[in-house]
Amino acid sequence: MKKLKLEELGRLTPEEYKEKTKISLSIVLDNIRSMHNVGASFRTSDAFLIEKIYLCGITATPPHREIHKTALGAQDTVSWEHHADTAELIKSLKAEGKTIVAVEQADKSTMIDEFIVDPSQSYVLVFGNEVEGVSEQAFNLSDFCVEIPQFGTKHSLNVSVSMGIVLWEFVKKYNK
Amino acid sequence: MKKLKLEELGRLTPEEYKEKTKISLSIVLDNIRSMHNVGASFRTSDAFLIEKIYLCGITATPPHREIHKTALGAQDTVSWEHHADTAELIKSLKAEGKTIVAVEQADKSTMIDEFIVDPSQSYVLVFGNEVEGVSEQAFNLSDFCVEIPQFGTKHSLNVSVSMGIVLWEFVKKYNK
Repeated sequence: MKKLKLEELGRLTPEEYKEKTKISLSIVLDNIRSMHNVGASFRTSDAFLIEKIYLCGITATPPHREIHKTALGAQDTVSWEHHADTAELIKSLKAEGKTIVAVEQADKSTMIDEFIVDPSQSYVLVFGNEVEGVSEQAFNLSDFCVEIPQFGTKHSLNVSVSMGIVLWEFVKKYNK
Repeated sequence: MKKLKLEELGRLTPEEYKEKTKISLSIVLDNIRSMHNVGASFRTSDAFLIEKIYLCGITATPPHREIHKTALGAQDTVSWEHHADTAELIKSLKAEGKTIVAVEQADKSTMIDEFIVDPSQSYVLVFGNEVEGVSEQAFNLSDFCVEIPQFGTKHSLNVSVSMGIVLWEFVKKYNK
């Protein structure tokens, strides 16, 4: 067995990426404070062919040196929009027929491994602020809430890590 | 539906955590450069009740301000050891009967969703340096290699994100 070299990875060019069919899944970053998390969201979204990143409220937008440091160029391939008001954006996405899924710890959440993804649906996953989580308004507008089971002392995964896990669970089911 | 308050999360105290049975899964950080990634590994390992973190080579160890910033206290709950030489550590873990799984992009890797986890086994997952990946020596000593499928222009998920996804896939199968 041998490690693959960079040129053996089958990476798309930015032009090929642009033409490639994305999966019908977008993410909302609801007032994310850390540019590291914003950068990671671009890198993960590039890897999984996510349709769009909605950067909302105080969430920083490219071009920004701190975002680029983590995104490593993915900020130029993945589509994004900035919206000042997360709740207004979610209302308009719902009006377009999209299914809104908040990622939160809530009393009636569904554990992520038990959530049934319908690949004919167009989902929007909402990730919240590092301290406050998803804002109440955005949370209340969501159709579903999914949660990553946690068993330790913190119950507070890093936002980039949560995005990786939840996107992976959805992407896997879209690609089946 | 309502968001849970901190006191409703059912978080373990550090004492309860210590007594809690961990899953038979450890991780090796093979020359990880970023303390953000080290900190996140503690936080994710705390959430999933990982047995031990082996910090190897240049990987920084607690106590360190930059690790604490991301680990948020999990550096005090999760067991860890430092080893100067990753390959020597892996040899001794293999001698103890553990199954070594490198997380890498390789010609004969198994995609992570297709890897069959045997919960009666004790696994050690090896995560490599941000640029170089898992060192050749450690890679060659591994029993298996798993890979996260990636479809975009980068094929280079952040190490913390990769750890989250791969640990989650294993943990899910242990908990079934």
